[in-house]
Amino acid sequence: MRRLKLVVEYDGTDFRGFAIQSRHRTVQGELEGVLGRLTGTPTRVAGSGRTDAGVHALGQVVSFSTASRLESLEMQRALNALLPRDIVVKSVEQVAEGFHARWSAVERHYRYSVWNNPLPSVLHRRYSYQVPDALNVEAMNEASRLVEGTRDFACFTFGLSRYLSSGQRRSTVRTVNSAGWHGDGPEVQFDIVGTAFLPHMIRNIVGSILKVGHGTWTAEEFRRMLDEGATELSNSTVPALGLMLVGVEY
Amino acid sequence: MRRLKLVVEYDGTDFRGFAIQSRHRTVQGELEGVLGRLTGTPTRVAGSGRTDAGVHALGQVVSFSTASRLESLEMQRALNALLPRDIVVKSVEQVAEGFHARWSAVERHYRYSVWNNPLPSVLHRRYSYQVPDALNVEAMNEASRLVEGTRDFACFTFGLSRYLSSGQRRSTVRTVNSAGWHGDGPEVQFDIVGTAFLPHMIRNIVGSILKVGHGTWTAEEFRRMLDEGATELSNSTVPALGLMLVGVEY
Repeated sequence: MRRLKLVVEYDGTDFRGFAIQSRHRTVQGELEGVLGRLTGTPTRVAGSGRTDAGVHALGQVVSFSTASRLESLEMQRALNALLPRDIVVKSVEQVAEGFHARWSAVERHYRYSVWNNPLPSVLHRRYSYQVPDALNVEAMNEASRLVEGTRDFACFTFGLSRYLSSGQRRSTVRTVNSAGWHGDGPEVQFDIVGTAFLPHMIRNIVGSILKVGHGTWTAEEFRRMLDEGATELSNSTVPALGLMLVGVEY
Repeated sequence: MRRLKLVVEYDGTDFRGFAIQSRHRTVQGELEGVLGRLTGTPTRVAGSGRTDAGVHALGQVVSFSTASRLESLEMQRALNALLPRDIVVKSVEQVAEGFHARWSAVERHYRYSVWNNPLPSVLHRRYSYQVPDALNVEAMNEASRLVEGTRDFACFTFGLSRYLSSGQRRSTVRTVNSAGWHGDGPEVQFDIVGTAFLPHMIRNIVGSILKVGHGTWTAEEFRRMLDEGATELSNSTVPALGLMLVGVEY
């Protein structure tokens, strides 16, 4: 058996997310279906993380073991020939047996794209979230710096985990290495790099910081809510279509 | 009656082009349908030019006369509320009675986008043409300069008009004010500005210049074919999806 690492790009629009589901079209489902037919053996793959329905990827990483004797480049070509047009395998690489796309990852980079204009953009509509009102990007960057570092990010995730007793619940401490906005004019993007992210964490961070950008909250109020773990922070989820997994470091 | 000028953005993917057709979805058809329902009067619109099926527009211009008493901004809002998501009216402006989107235009700007990479791009696939092999952009710019100026561009258009006797045939002389490639890495774009363009002219110019970029023809050979009006030049049509009407000057 060889261990392979794939870098995969996909347009999340027509998927119910990465993780396989019995009745829905998913990225994992498409990959496993094609790998099973190609190698003749049911093949389970692991992704670096589960992107939600509608989230895109420029560099999702997937690992699996296979007895296939196809060389890496042949495997890549065969997969791309069989996969639907909204998934592309950008590289195939043989890796050490212990490599795991999720557990071996040390850093993930996500980008959230905002179309900041009163009019929607027809050409960006699949890949960015339209925010009609003007944004104060400087205040947003001030707020972004507050989410950098190691802390409990439970306030940005949803529901259940926060109500479980501490014994049952998994750690919600994560490290954000950098977070900031850039771009001028209608296209504005938020780049965030961290060890790992909780479910909905990035979309709630973006939604909260957009409230700072609109003047609903000051950066100082945001800091206080962050320190208190205020529940409002988990009610700010922006749409999935603006989010993209840019890449994963190992 | 007032005369109105609209600037319109659309994603050409799901249209059979701009010009109305009885059984197909077209940009003109959508606009006229919505205008007819909104104003209560059948309304015919004129576009600056007919974009082919699959061609996009950032700034197509459309003109029409209407008895509607909606102010420009109200007209824009109402149209955008009623139009499908792949068309957006970017502005509405009242213009002089004699204004005509096509006949008043003095300059048109088109862009052709190439994804120059052995692997397709999932995220650019609707708006650019994939060219797997490496391109010599310098040679392509040398060739581009040869299409600048006023000349007979019949060699870049298709079929019939070239076989009609000179009495029947319309002039195929056009003026290209500027043409050139830019961009680094996988995204390469061709910008061309001219008074007007013949059917398929830009897509054949791009296809011919890509042959220079691949080394199939040298820039010097391209110059000779251009001077001779060689028929090979009209057999180089690249796909519509890479083409976009950027804007029109009046």
